[in-house]
Amino acid sequence: MQKNYKNLKVAYIGGGSRGWAWGFMTDLAQDKDMGGTVYLYDIDFDAAKKNETIGNSIEIGDWSYLACNTIGEALDGADFVIISIFPGTFDEMHSDVHYPEKYGIYQSVGDSVGPGGIIRSLRTVPMFEEFGEAIKKYCPDAWVINYTNPMSISIKALYRVFPQIKAFGCCHEVFGTQVLLSRMLDKLCGIKDVKREEIKVNPIGVNHFTWVTEAKYKNTDLFPLYREFAVQHRESGFDFKQGENLINDKVRHGEKVKFDLFLRYGVIAAAGDRHLAEFCPGDWYLNSPEQVEGWGFGLTTVDWRRNQLRERLEKSAKLLSGEMKPEFKPTGEDGCRQMRALLGLDDLITNVNLPNYGQIPNLPMGAIVETNAVFRGDSVKPVFAGEIPQKIYSLVSHACGNQVSLDEAIAERSLDLAFAVFANDPLVRLPIDKAREMFDGMVANTAEYLKMYK
Amino acid sequence: MQKNYKNLKVAYIGGGSRGWAWGFMTDLAQDKDMGGTVYLYDIDFDAAKKNETIGNSIEIGDWSYLACNTIGEALDGADFVIISIFPGTFDEMHSDVHYPEKYGIYQSVGDSVGPGGIIRSLRTVPMFEEFGEAIKKYCPDAWVINYTNPMSISIKALYRVFPQIKAFGCCHEVFGTQVLLSRMLDKLCGIKDVKREEIKVNPIGVNHFTWVTEAKYKNTDLFPLYREFAVQHRESGFDFKQGENLINDKVRHGEKVKFDLFLRYGVIAAAGDRHLAEFCPGDWYLNSPEQVEGWGFGLTTVDWRRNQLRERLEKSAKLLSGEMKPEFKPTGEDGCRQMRALLGLDDLITNVNLPNYGQIPNLPMGAIVETNAVFRGDSVKPVFAGEIPQKIYSLVSHACGNQVSLDEAIAERSLDLAFAVFANDPLVRLPIDKAREMFDGMVANTAEYLKMYK
Amino acid sequence: MQKNYKNLKVAYIGGGSRGWAWGFMTDLAQDKDMGGTVYLYDIDFDAAKKNETIGNSIEIGDWSYLACNTIGEALDGADFVIISIFPGTFDEMHSDVHYPEKYGIYQSVGDSVGPGGIIRSLRTVPMFEEFGEAIKKYCPDAWVINYTNPMSISIKALYRVFPQIKAFGCCHEVFGTQVLLSRMLDKLCGIKDVKREEIKVNPIGVNHFTWVTEAKYKNTDLFPLYREFAVQHRESGFDFKQGENLINDKVRHGEKVKFDLFLRYGVIAAAGDRHLAEFCPGDWYLNSPEQVEGWGFGLTTVDWRRNQLRERLEKSAKLLSGEMKPEFKPTGEDGCRQMRALLGLDDLITNVNLPNYGQIPNLPMGAIVETNAVFRGDSVKPVFAGEIPQKIYSLVSHACGNQVSLDEAIAERSLDLAFAVFANDPLVRLPIDKAREMFDGMVANTAEYLKMYK
Amino acid sequence: MQKNYKNLKVAYIGGGSRGWAWGFMTDLAQDKDMGGTVYLYDIDFDAAKKNETIGNSIEIGDWSYLACNTIGEALDGADFVIISIFPGTFDEMHSDVHYPEKYGIYQSVGDSVGPGGIIRSLRTVPMFEEFGEAIKKYCPDAWVINYTNPMSISIKALYRVFPQIKAFGCCHEVFGTQVLLSRMLDKLCGIKDVKREEIKVNPIGVNHFTWVTEAKYKNTDLFPLYREFAVQHRESGFDFKQGENLINDKVRHGEKVKFDLFLRYGVIAAAGDRHLAEFCPGDWYLNSPEQVEGWGFGLTTVDWRRNQLRERLEKSAKLLSGEMKPEFKPTGEDGCRQMRALLGLDDLITNVNLPNYGQIPNLPMGAIVETNAVFRGDSVKPVFAGEIPQKIYSLVSHACGNQVSLDEAIAERSLDLAFAVFANDPLVRLPIDKAREMFDGMVANTAEYLKMYK
Repeated sequence: MQKNYKNLKVAYIGGGSRGWAWGFMTDLAQDKDMGGTVYLYDIDFDAAKKNETIGNSIEIGDWSYLACNTIGEALDGADFVIISIFPGTFDEMHSDVHYPEKYGIYQSVGDSVGPGGIIRSLRTVPMFEEFGEAIKKYCPDAWVINYTNPMSISIKALYRVFPQIKAFGCCHEVFGTQVLLSRMLDKLCGIKDVKREEIKVNPIGVNHFTWVTEAKYKNTDLFPLYREFAVQHRESGFDFKQGENLINDKVRHGEKVKFDLFLRYGVIAAAGDRHLAEFCPGDWYLNSPEQVEGWGFGLTTVDWRRNQLRERLEKSAKLLSGEMKPEFKPTGEDGCRQMRALLGLDDLITNVNLPNYGQIPNLPMGAIVETNAVFRGDSVKPVFAGEIPQKIYSLVSHACGNQVSLDEAIAERSLDLAFAVFANDPLVRLPIDKAREMFDGMVANTAEYLKMYK
Repeated sequence: MQKNYKNLKVAYIGGGSRGWAWGFMTDLAQDKDMGGTVYLYDIDFDAAKKNETIGNSIEIGDWSYLACNTIGEALDGADFVIISIFPGTFDEMHSDVHYPEKYGIYQSVGDSVGPGGIIRSLRTVPMFEEFGEAIKKYCPDAWVINYTNPMSISIKALYRVFPQIKAFGCCHEVFGTQVLLSRMLDKLCGIKDVKREEIKVNPIGVNHFTWVTEAKYKNTDLFPLYREFAVQHRESGFDFKQGENLINDKVRHGEKVKFDLFLRYGVIAAAGDRHLAEFCPGDWYLNSPEQVEGWGFGLTTVDWRRNQLRERLEKSAKLLSGEMKPEFKPTGEDGCRQMRALLGLDDLITNVNLPNYGQIPNLPMGAIVETNAVFRGDSVKPVFAGEIPQKIYSLVSHACGNQVSLDEAIAERSLDLAFAVFANDPLVRLPIDKAREMFDGMVANTAEYLKMYK
Repeated sequence: MQKNYKNLKVAYIGGGSRGWAWGFMTDLAQDKDMGGTVYLYDIDFDAAKKNETIGNSIEIGDWSYLACNTIGEALDGADFVIISIFPGTFDEMHSDVHYPEKYGIYQSVGDSVGPGGIIRSLRTVPMFEEFGEAIKKYCPDAWVINYTNPMSISIKALYRVFPQIKAFGCCHEVFGTQVLLSRMLDKLCGIKDVKREEIKVNPIGVNHFTWVTEAKYKNTDLFPLYREFAVQHRESGFDFKQGENLINDKVRHGEKVKFDLFLRYGVIAAAGDRHLAEFCPGDWYLNSPEQVEGWGFGLTTVDWRRNQLRERLEKSAKLLSGEMKPEFKPTGEDGCRQMRALLGLDDLITNVNLPNYGQIPNLPMGAIVETNAVFRGDSVKPVFAGEIPQKIYSLVSHACGNQVSLDEAIAERSLDLAFAVFANDPLVRLPIDKAREMFDGMVANTAEYLKMYK
Repeated sequence: MQKNYKNLKVAYIGGGSRGWAWGFMTDLAQDKDMGGTVYLYDIDFDAAKKNETIGNSIEIGDWSYLACNTIGEALDGADFVIISIFPGTFDEMHSDVHYPEKYGIYQSVGDSVGPGGIIRSLRTVPMFEEFGEAIKKYCPDAWVINYTNPMSISIKALYRVFPQIKAFGCCHEVFGTQVLLSRMLDKLCGIKDVKREEIKVNPIGVNHFTWVTEAKYKNTDLFPLYREFAVQHRESGFDFKQGENLINDKVRHGEKVKFDLFLRYGVIAAAGDRHLAEFCPGDWYLNSPEQVEGWGFGLTTVDWRRNQLRERLEKSAKLLSGEMKPEFKPTGEDGCRQMRALLGLDDLITNVNLPNYGQIPNLPMGAIVETNAVFRGDSVKPVFAGEIPQKIYSLVSHACGNQVSLDEAIAERSLDLAFAVFANDPLVRLPIDKAREMFDGMVANTAEYLKMYK
């Protein structure tokens, strides 16, 4: 009667990924109940082919892998669609992240908001419109899980072109806050080894600018503890990754931004500091590399990313040759758990990105927001999260408002409207002509991916 | 740091209850983590005192019981408040249920809607207004769990007098539908022993007139199966309580109403047939005892209830004397599980009655509706349930609309406005003067409890 | 630059109408600013042709008339579309109104709700779906004014098939209440000749079951006066049409239903008594011809309507032959004024039927509701009317709920779902099998118009 | 029966005003229907007393004036309350407007948003909380008309302390856009002397950052014309005040900001350029005095305001001595017309500031928004204005979001929270420590009015 869990079809768009894909493969391999075939589609077919080989070399689990040439082949009749792409190349991302530095604008990530995030949106959203159309055609009943950034506007694009789509976006940033709260319990109360899932939170906001309005460990309210903790560590930071060389760590963060925001607003900001900083007015945390240094987080350079990729390519070669074996430690990502819950194997309450149906009453309906949702038996239903607290409404509504306007700008393929959002981004604090010059430069740098704009 | 789970204070309003209270006591006794004192308050102090003795005679678990003379004593500083009262006496209920029979109106329960439910509301809501005021005064942070009928309007009264109250209403009727679906899986598919919690449903509606728009067992959609099942059993009924003598069973039901409603609307009605029938136009299922017989459910007489009570009083005497010991089988009620979840011990997703914050967008905000909610760490948050399907909107909005109007009538202590709702109840199908005559008779019969009305 | 007001194209669907069309023609003729051509389309081409002749014989004004064979010809490029049709023939209406009398169900109008209104909806809505599709094709920018009953569900059908349509529905029932209030001012205060437009009201509800929550004449609140007036006239009625023989007046009403509803709820019911009675539980006002007699309103028989038509046909012949001339007294309808306002010639605030965008927050979004709206320069915008008062919510939400469910039933072409609404109508108070028998009989009687149903 | 229009009581808070009060007096004097007494209350009693004398010297009309010592005396039993105050002195305003210039931040008005507007809010809102409390006590049924800036947050304060208040805020900025469109009709089409009321607009947004989504003159859509007009004048500006010496005009504007915003977004910005510029990211229009010069509008200095006041004081002396007589030209303000409409004398559709009840669905409920409303017979009801267009949502939601957060900051009397909004204002583009330094300086400069903050 019920579908065989061992006969699933998963379409993986961006299936040539090095790194994230491998984690997903090992998570799948360790699952006792599910099995089937993962169809790997990538514009770099060769990369997908390599992942096919790596995937099929995994000796445990019930999954096989198949690289395919067309997106239709991958999607046709799929039960699940995973989207995890890198839109453009590192050349485009280099422009996104570093070109604004010529204008004194620094970005710690550059993939969600800020000048980099906006230009990245311009090239990503048209891709997601195509994905949405293809899903409508080939597998309208599939569950679609997106991991790609910019998250909010990519999910919006899917729903814009196919309103009945069963899509949501996953992000592990809130998980990091749960881990931080767990470590706080150790430091302040000596309670050790609390799993992040045991920290019950009510996330609210937009992706990468999420906040937590309630946090409990069993029946303990974590807010008073967090205040104590934030006061202790606001100057020093909290040495999250102990023992590592922080100076050269381009993704480090010492939670000082998070503590600062908490002490200012009384609400827990619940994403990594590198993301949070980009949603605040540009001069708060990202005024200069020196200021960033003072706040204890890293500006993730694209060169650093290139190096990372090089290492992963070397790892890929070793995995292909069999010189190295995939590691089977859990990734901490929710993907497999979500699939299990959607198949009815477990219940799951976790944070995801979905259109606003009223789960946050004071953000506009239909905007993509992040809150908890209940996953079970072929359904994802948002949990009522309450209003964005008035204190942070100024910041969050600005971020959400920019998302709404940018979506329209891209839907109309209008660079002028996109620039209007760009100029209103909290990080862009330039005379309008300078802002336009910068925008035009960034568009020119990435022109190959922006041919559809006028 | 966190509150000791062994030192809880529970206030039990209606703590002299025979039957339901004992089940709650045994559920508590079997809980490994929680302990403390249950303060039993009842207008019948003697009954509370007996339950104190019975409760304290339970040899397992970490709970003690204390009967108290005032509601303030019971509530003061309570962590949880249980409300499970019987409003008035069987004399009043006899009038509620049987007086309308003089006018050709038959009721299968008479405690939620219909002429009996409305008169019962008139005497119950002022009591709940007092409870709400007392909770505001003595334990504003307590979680308040109501089991009393009429459910919706009682919860509404609590929120009307104390909007910050943390109250919800529990009802096991949807559980019964989960059990039915589990038994269907056995009959149709040979899948045995599926626990009701494994049947994932999306309940939607108002208490006792709940519907299920999605039902899954693992990844199987139960709707096609239910259609097959309903077609099979629409004539014969489904012998829910096998082997019992149905003719004399005043609470029996053979699910024929449920099957009929499903085959008519394509949505699963998810309460017992005796309740469902009372929300439908009076001549559908309750036109005459013969029609009721044909639909296979019982009209629960108050004499039957008196007999039941007599048996329970005998049992009470035996429990008191020690001749009988409490049985430790799980009751299937959610109360203890909800308390555990609110203390942060587990997560729980279950159906409860709460004000509409948008979980059902096409019912009015603030009306009391029943949907799933997530219980965890000191929070109950409704899950977005979606709109009432258009097909059943006519029925459900009528029930909800009557609740809204009746609440206002009682808030204004206006019998005339209450009569206006009474006259618009689906079961009351009389010329207006006859309807008023019946209403006035029922009010006169229960006048002792209605002194606050004009 | 701006469109010449003398070159308008008006499409008149139902343009063979005797009576209503003539009033519209004379209203147009008396307008100083507007002119153009009215395209008369009717399934009875001959009737349209006769109206063409009558219209063109009018000697004043700047309008010409043209009967046309196809709806496309009438609609193509139209600025305005008037829809005023009679769905089916008097034979169908005879069944709608009188067949239920066999079952003891009496209807005073039978064109909006009740068994007759529902069967009439079954044949009318598919016609409006066609109109909506044709308007989408031929004149998507036209303003569409509907006068046809059943009003709410016809407007809903237009929006369902063409969500961008600029349609609204007009009804003069609220005007009648304004006139009543004006006459009250004369009787109680000696203030004479107050025009109905000077009585400022806030209408709220659904068509033919509208209520007024505020009524002012200048700065006088009319509610206390109306209470006095209602008390005076609740027994005797208010002799609205003085000096006429009321016994034989099939459309008479003495406002006793209106006064009764006011004294019960404190809100002014604002449609004619014949309409109001049909929305209330069946036994309140329509239990028997004798009860109706007691409430002082008439049951409008279809024979009376046939006679009326005969008289109008005679008048038509005289108008055609020139023996009689059209009378130029204002009809009191809003049509011409609305056209003027939409052309930017005047501002107008009046009550109309529109989808609920939030003008009545406690009715479902998208349901067709009646409130005031502002007409000016190519726009109709609803005025925020506030919530349906809790006291009457039970009644109004039932009416609105039935509309929502019936719309779905018809959209799915399902007689079973339509019957489910029928059985839940306040006037239908029969055992379910009898109700079905009556429904089936009424469907059979009008089968020629119901071929699209399954 | 109805209240005598000649016996009205108007309370005027800020009744010592020079200038605006005189205009109101002459508007009243010219009204044929209304009369009564205006109670002038001002913290400068002497100024009120002088206005009493001036008012009573007006020889036409039916109004008398009375300066009073306490606000209670003025409000007690009032029919209307006018609030038009100047919060603080020019010294405070000098700090608001010019202190930020030390940090390179220029403001063209400095009374609504921006650093000046926020500090002004800090001292104004507590005054409005007192007004709201006093109105609740002395005249809860009065209509309250506010003209004071900052408008939105002042209205919010009234509703926060007294939710049942009948208050709204009036602003003439949208009127200016209507006048501009009228002049455009002259220039482009040769249509002369179109009155501003004949230009029908749909305003939407928040005060001083209003936009017009529809504009009609009769049946002509003004948008295509406005595009042509904006293209013509984007470089040169439109010489709004012809023949005056613009260089020294501190309140001049050539509409270039308005044209620029229109050509960017396709929606008509509908406030004066000096206001609009302050809601846009700081570097768009207000980067430097030179940039402002280029955009053709003036930075209104407080010295200029002091001079203006000096002139008005001289005029006051002459009016007092009788050397000068009040001029009776209409002011163009809506105040008298609104009073007339509220008394039921006329209908009025005009733009006002009210809490959002859903008139703008994509801004948060309860925020103060500006749209059209219908005034008639003791009621003001907002007209459904539709959603803020997606294109400008980024800008408008930011402004609205700041209002929401600032209201909370002031309600909590928290300078830290107020600073959080300050730092997120579009004009404040400084490193966070510099921003705080500026904020602290501005708070210190105006400390006398900020004693209630912590």
